[in-house]
Amino acid sequence: MAATIIDVFSDPITTTDLGRVEDAIRETVAVNYPVMTDLLNGIIAAKGKMLRPRMLLTAAQIFNYDLSRLAPAAAGLELLHIASLIHDDTVDKALFRRGAATLNSVLPTTIVVLLGDYLFAQSAVLVSKSHDLRAMTLFAETLGDICNGELDEIFQTRQWDQTRQQYDRRIHGKTAALFATAAEFGGILSGAPEEAVQALRAYGAAFGMGYQIVDDVLDLRETSEAIGKPAGSDLRQGTLTLPMMLFMERYASADDLALIRKVVLGTKTDDAQIDALVGRVRTSGALDDAITEAQVAIDSAKRHLDVLPATQPRAYLGAMADFVTTRRS
Amino acid sequence: MAATIIDVFSDPITTTDLGRVEDAIRETVAVNYPVMTDLLNGIIAAKGKMLRPRMLLTAAQIFNYDLSRLAPAAAGLELLHIASLIHDDTVDKALFRRGAATLNSVLPTTIVVLLGDYLFAQSAVLVSKSHDLRAMTLFAETLGDICNGELDEIFQTRQWDQTRQQYDRRIHGKTAALFATAAEFGGILSGAPEEAVQALRAYGAAFGMGYQIVDDVLDLRETSEAIGKPAGSDLRQGTLTLPMMLFMERYASADDLALIRKVVLGTKTDDAQIDALVGRVRTSGALDDAITEAQVAIDSAKRHLDVLPATQPRAYLGAMADFVTTRRS
Repeated sequence: MAATIIDVFSDPITTTDLGRVEDAIRETVAVNYPVMTDLLNGIIAAKGKMLRPRMLLTAAQIFNYDLSRLAPAAAGLELLHIASLIHDDTVDKALFRRGAATLNSVLPTTIVVLLGDYLFAQSAVLVSKSHDLRAMTLFAETLGDICNGELDEIFQTRQWDQTRQQYDRRIHGKTAALFATAAEFGGILSGAPEEAVQALRAYGAAFGMGYQIVDDVLDLRETSEAIGKPAGSDLRQGTLTLPMMLFMERYASADDLALIRKVVLGTKTDDAQIDALVGRVRTSGALDDAITEAQVAIDSAKRHLDVLPATQPRAYLGAMADFVTTRRS
Repeated sequence: MAATIIDVFSDPITTTDLGRVEDAIRETVAVNYPVMTDLLNGIIAAKGKMLRPRMLLTAAQIFNYDLSRLAPAAAGLELLHIASLIHDDTVDKALFRRGAATLNSVLPTTIVVLLGDYLFAQSAVLVSKSHDLRAMTLFAETLGDICNGELDEIFQTRQWDQTRQQYDRRIHGKTAALFATAAEFGGILSGAPEEAVQALRAYGAAFGMGYQIVDDVLDLRETSEAIGKPAGSDLRQGTLTLPMMLFMERYASADDLALIRKVVLGTKTDDAQIDALVGRVRTSGALDDAITEAQVAIDSAKRHLDVLPATQPRAYLGAMADFVTTRRS
C-alpha cells in the first residue's frame, strides 16, 4: 500500500487548522441563489487533499504562525485552484468533448463560466484579508501564470513537434506556479527572511513540476477507476506529456511513432489501437523514466529546504515532497 | 445633435494622459501567441469611451495627481470592464443565442473564456502596480460585485415578477459597482481625505445607476444601426428592465401584459408581435419616465460632488454626469 497524504500529515496542528481554512472557504458560499449555494457546497465537500493550504500553513509554521492571516490566504489559493479546474473543464469539453462527468457536463456552460468567475473573485477577496500587498500582487501574477499555462495547453494541443522546454513551461503555469505561490505565501505571511521566502518559492515550484509529471504518468498508468478518466486521456485529446515524449524518444517503433502522430493530429482515433499503444507505453521503460524525472524535481525541491531552520514543519515539507512520487491518484 | 463625450472632455491633460492608460493596456497584450495578440489588439482598438479611466483620472486631479500610480490602476479597471463584457457575451450566447457578432460568435467558447480569464488576471496585475493595499482589496470586492450582478441577471431572466429593488441590485453589480470603484480609486490613489473618497464612491455609484437605466432605455428606443443589436433585445432575451417595468405599471393594456408575460417566460417569440409591442412602449410615456428616473440618479451623483473642493476637474465630473442622460449610444 502506498503512503497516503493522511499518513504523512498526522500533525495535529495542521489538521485542526485546516478546518479554519475550510471554514473560510465555506463562508464564501453565502450567495443569493440556493442553486449556486448547493453547487458550491458540492464542490467544497468534494475537496481534494488540500495540498496547497497544507503547504502554506506548514511553511509558515517554521516562522511566525498567525492563523488569522494565514487561513484566508490559504483558502484563497485553494479556491483559485478549484476555479481554474472548473474553467479548465469548460475548455476541455468545448474542445474535446471529454466524457467524464464534470460540472460542465451537467450544467450550461454559462453557469459554469460564471461559477468559475465568482470563485476567482472570492479567492481574490480571501487573499485580500491577509492585508499584505506583496501577497496580493503575487496572487495577481499567479492568476496570470495559470492563464498562460492554460493558453499554452490550448495552443500546444494537436502539435506534433514539442520540446521538453515547452512542456516544462506549460506545466509550470498549469500546476507549479500555484504551489510556488502557496509556499511563498507561507514565507511572506509569516515574516520569513527574504532568503527563506525565495527558498520556499523554489521548493514549491520544483514540487509542482514533480507533481504534474507524476500526474501525467498516472494518466497513462492507472485504470479508469483509480483516476476517474480513461487511461491515456491526454493523448486522446492531442496533448503530449513527458512520459509520452520519453516513449517516443527512447522506445517507440516507427509504427508507434506514425500512430502517435495521427492521434495527436486528430486524424486517428481508433480506440482499440490507442488502447494497445497505451499498453506498449506501460510495458516500455517510459513511465519509470518519467518518474525518475519527477524524482529529480522532488530532490531539487528538498534541497531548497536546506537553507530553512531545521524544524519539525521543515521535515513535514520534505515528507510532503517524498509523497509526490509514491502517490497513486 | 446630442453632445458627444469628446465635446465634454476637451481637457488636454486628461486626453493626453489617457494615452498612458492605453499604453498600459497595450503592454498587457504581450502574450506568446500571435492569434491571441491579434485578438487583444482588436479589442483594444475597438475601445469605447474609456469612461472608467476618465472618471478615475479626473477624480484624482482634484487631489494629488500622480500619473505613474494612476495609469496602471485606470488601465486595470478598463481591462476588467472589457473582460466582464467578454464573459457576459459568452453567457448571453449560451443562454439566448444572441445574433450579434460578438467575439463568441467567431471563436470557440473555450478561447473566449480563457481570453476573459487572461484579461481578469492582467487587470489584477495592473491594479497591483498602484502598490496600494486598499485599492487591491477594493478591486477584488468589485470583481465579486460584478459576478453577483451577472448571477442576478442569469437568475432573474425569464422571471415575471420583479421588483424595482431587484432591478437596482442587479444593475448595481452589472454597471454601477465598477463606476463607484473607478471614482473611489481616483480618491484613494490621490490621497484624498476619507470624506472625499466616500463622496467620490457615492458619485460613481449613482452615475452608474443612471448610466445603466439610460442603456436600458436605448435598448428599446434606438434602431439596430445605432446600438448594434435589435431594438428590445433585453425583452427578447427574457430580461425585464426599468423602462419595461414602468410601461407595465403605468401604460400597458391587459393584452400588452399578457404578451410581455409570454415573451419573458419564453413561450412567445413572434418577432412581428414583439416589434409592435416595442413600438407601443416607445410611444407611451415609459421611456421618458425611465429617463426621469435616470436623471434622479444623475442629480444625486452631482450632489455628492458638493463636498469636494470646487475645482475644474470637479466641474468635469459634473459635466460627465450630465452627458449620461443625453447620450444616444
